[in-house]
Amino acid sequence: MTDDAPTLPPIRLPEGRALPAGMTLRRPDAEDHASVVAVIPEWWGLPAGTRLTALLPRLFFQHFSDRSFLAEDASGLAAFLIGFHSSAQPEVAYIHFVGVRPDVREAGLARTLYEAFFAEAVAAGRRRVDAITGPSNRRSQSFHRSMGFEATGTAEVDGVLAWLDYDGPDEHRVAFTRRIGPPTP
Amino acid sequence: MTDDAPTLPPIRLPEGRALPAGMTLRRPDAEDHASVVAVIPEWWGLPAGTRLTALLPRLFFQHFSDRSFLAEDASGLAAFLIGFHSSAQPEVAYIHFVGVRPDVREAGLARTLYEAFFAEAVAAGRRRVDAITGPSNRRSQSFHRSMGFEATGTAEVDGVLAWLDYDGPDEHRVAFTRRIGPPTP
Repeated sequence: MTDDAPTLPPIRLPEGRALPAGMTLRRPDAEDHASVVAVIPEWWGLPAGTRLTALLPRLFFQHFSDRSFLAEDASGLAAFLIGFHSSAQPEVAYIHFVGVRPDVREAGLARTLYEAFFAEAVAAGRRRVDAITGPSNRRSQSFHRSMGFEATGTAEVDGVLAWLDYDGPDEHRVAFTRRIGPPTP
Repeated sequence: MTDDAPTLPPIRLPEGRALPAGMTLRRPDAEDHASVVAVIPEWWGLPAGTRLTALLPRLFFQHFSDRSFLAEDASGLAAFLIGFHSSAQPEVAYIHFVGVRPDVREAGLARTLYEAFFAEAVAAGRRRVDAITGPSNRRSQSFHRSMGFEATGTAEVDGVLAWLDYDGPDEHRVAFTRRIGPPTP
């Protein structure tokens, strides 16, 4: 299979950031794919049985685990961030999918994961982080703004600026971007 | 937006391989996403209006265009190969999505795209290429075998060896792998 466990870089939390007591952070691996996919309907408040697996195929856990994080506590999976550094755009890092278990929200955990991702991206020479979300996902939009991202788009969709047909017909998206690292001279 | 056009490596065809007369090969970019997504139902023989956009989001055209190919002729889009080099597994390259327009099939075009991908992967130090397909996709399975891939799996699904729930519940897949480059000493 394609699930050989590679040796992945250790995780260091950004200065001044800590995880909630009893929580640990590690790199995901392919075996984590099923448990992450399983929590999505509940964490996103979707009807039971909703399948969003096509948005988060196993390949992300096989090939981009070196830039991704998974947080666990005594209750199991607590949060995850799946991201990668762009191959075609050497200055860009991309955050693809992030989730935090509802009972541990509002504790700064997503912020800590983002800042850990930013710090690794800066260390690897990246200068910008991109992410997208759906026009109706107000929580995600608010979070990205609070993290210093700017939203871009071409038209108003559901009351927010979004890119029409960004991910295919009727798949409109709000695109977020944020500079990271030292200011450009 | 996230569509800054990066400078991408030039494409060289493997020795002994040529494109059909009048066909050219280039790297895709984000603007090609819509036209590739649009041909999928027809090229795959799916009902009109079938949407598989979640399998091929725009991010592949933004961030992995440097390892991907798009072939065009007088009729427009003729073929594409979307792949990348694994970030977490430095020996692995991955072919994610490949399509050839029905009227130019059986001319060796997919083989040429695969061999061009193999050659670039070897040049970048990769030793293995992975790909997956659905248990019912006999054409893809036959093609991968003819290209020297070995299929792996854990159970028989639709008459072929496949990995159960590989990409989520009921998302069984046949996994293919192939060594590339000089034999391991």
